[in-house]
Amino acid sequence: MKTIRVNLGARSYPIHIGTGILRSAGRLLAAQAIGSDAYIITNTTVQKKYGVLLLSSLQSAGISARVKYIADTEKAKSLATAAAVLEDLARFDRKKRVFIIALGGGVVGDLAGFVAAIYKRGIPYIHIPTTLLAQVDSSIGGKTAVDLPEGKNLVGAFYQPRAVIADIALLKSLHIRQLRQGMAEVIKYGLIKDRQLFVFAEKNIKRILSGNTQALSYIVGRCAAIKADIVSRDEREERAMRTLLNFGHTIGHAIEAAGAYGAYGHGEAVALGMLVAADISRQMKLLDAKSQERIRQMILSAGLPVKLRGVSLQKIISVHYRDKKFIAGRNRFVLLSGIGKAKVVENVSLLIIQRSLEQIPTC
Amino acid sequence: MKTIRVNLGARSYPIHIGTGILRSAGRLLAAQAIGSDAYIITNTTVQKKYGVLLLSSLQSAGISARVKYIADTEKAKSLATAAAVLEDLARFDRKKRVFIIALGGGVVGDLAGFVAAIYKRGIPYIHIPTTLLAQVDSSIGGKTAVDLPEGKNLVGAFYQPRAVIADIALLKSLHIRQLRQGMAEVIKYGLIKDRQLFVFAEKNIKRILSGNTQALSYIVGRCAAIKADIVSRDEREERAMRTLLNFGHTIGHAIEAAGAYGAYGHGEAVALGMLVAADISRQMKLLDAKSQERIRQMILSAGLPVKLRGVSLQKIISVHYRDKKFIAGRNRFVLLSGIGKAKVVENVSLLIIQRSLEQIPTC
Repeated sequence: MKTIRVNLGARSYPIHIGTGILRSAGRLLAAQAIGSDAYIITNTTVQKKYGVLLLSSLQSAGISARVKYIADTEKAKSLATAAAVLEDLARFDRKKRVFIIALGGGVVGDLAGFVAAIYKRGIPYIHIPTTLLAQVDSSIGGKTAVDLPEGKNLVGAFYQPRAVIADIALLKSLHIRQLRQGMAEVIKYGLIKDRQLFVFAEKNIKRILSGNTQALSYIVGRCAAIKADIVSRDEREERAMRTLLNFGHTIGHAIEAAGAYGAYGHGEAVALGMLVAADISRQMKLLDAKSQERIRQMILSAGLPVKLRGVSLQKIISVHYRDKKFIAGRNRFVLLSGIGKAKVVENVSLLIIQRSLEQIPTC
Repeated sequence: MKTIRVNLGARSYPIHIGTGILRSAGRLLAAQAIGSDAYIITNTTVQKKYGVLLLSSLQSAGISARVKYIADTEKAKSLATAAAVLEDLARFDRKKRVFIIALGGGVVGDLAGFVAAIYKRGIPYIHIPTTLLAQVDSSIGGKTAVDLPEGKNLVGAFYQPRAVIADIALLKSLHIRQLRQGMAEVIKYGLIKDRQLFVFAEKNIKRILSGNTQALSYIVGRCAAIKADIVSRDEREERAMRTLLNFGHTIGHAIEAAGAYGAYGHGEAVALGMLVAADISRQMKLLDAKSQERIRQMILSAGLPVKLRGVSLQKIISVHYRDKKFIAGRNRFVLLSGIGKAKVVENVSLLIIQRSLEQIPTC
């Protein structure tokens, strides 16, 4: 087991990465003295796979538990679900030292983290990410959120977990589409910060997608280390540092929203967003055409979309203007000046954005 | 105008206190460059009285505004109201530098602060408290909250305002019952920290309740200074310091809840809670009987209840055990060792609590 630390003073926490470490969850949490009563937020699919293992591990460590199920769709990231969970949690929480365990992917993590942030003005929570996307990205950094009808992640809090337990063994049983979604974020980390990681992904994409433990361990470890470093230096996205993590996400979120969160998964939308951002970078003469094509090839070989389907361009542009990354009406893009090198650019002209969007083939 | 500062590093903010300063709100906010578009959360009663003045003050300062009404009852402090406000806010917030103004009493302030804390993971908000209770207590310190069916203030965040504008002139038109509610918190500040303030309240209670500007200015200024000092030193109630502010509130909240938030207002319930806490203090030989009687007289002369009506003792005790001030099942009381001197005591025996509750006459 490898442990990476997010350094945030009193709010620092460990990210444990290893194969088969779910069975040690109880021991790891007991060692941190997080609490005596776990409120596990998950969905039935995940619980069926890993619930028994987690519950027995908690029990051995003397931690009581209750399991709360939420739906396994983006729709669960709503204020209505949060309210239902909070009321159930309040009924569970009598004379207890309760803490929350988010057992699942991004939806479970975002919702559970938000509930932990606002229940009694903040109780401890830990992440046990069960998807590649959650292990490499969403479980780290304390961005919690639910959606509004008006937009994704519009409601939330910066609220750090007390620990992240990333068990690589959990990725083995993932559906290939979910591994691909996660690869979008891995490619992102390579592009913004780590050329070596990008090259590794280029060379090992087949091993990764076939669930090779060694390859998966390497990419989860690298991504977690990069994210931990960025979050340690810019927790609340007040400097350009953390903004880099939004590479591909500005347009990606608009594509997700324009497709009513049904046409594309998060990683797929981010892949398309990265294509657009790479093209904007090329148009603005930051990135050469060869690197741009190499990025497209990487996305393609990861089995992620490079074509738009069932989502109108106009819709994407109109949704884009509602993105919370806008500051006082100005847009803000993370662009590339090479593979492994990113920077924040404000006020990209609508014409350039539109051209880059139109350059994506539709099918 | 007098300005008191809450010192919290980058999150420091001013509390402006003065008579007739509402008309300067726009100028004060523009000077701080808080934002260009105000989303005012209030209720129709308050808006009718002060809305025009505030809107014209904002307009002169070049700040656009939209007014959102919530109900004028504790019921508005719900997740459902928060959701409705958040959705409306998201529709208003297009290409804007939006911030929230809480124009009202405790309910408006708690809800508006919570909405500001979680919208886009935090946008600026300012308080313009319109009740004595809000001016002396709830508008300062960043405790935001909504209620759950399971208990009051169970959901919320620590989130500081960017400014508080306390206009003493607004208190003139307050209903006498609301002035009395506020006096409960004033008495609290005197008891826990400021014997001189308590003595002032004893001598000037008639002037205060008749709306005398000078007397009100003095008590608002003193309470704000005490609270600012406490919050500056213990923002998140991690030390015993801020816990002192809960004097009278442990049992007070239970009384409010047991009366289904209808039998007693917050200040009235706190007054009864202070009577109980004073009696516990006497039982535990911290406080002499003479001081206890003096406290009772003060509460009585402020027109606050000293008798229980329509709320069962058993209900209060059972609700009390669900209070979030419980830590791992142990209770925690703020007790007095004299007028102006308080301390935190854990694990007060149920027998003593029960005796002190029974000692309150019922009618």
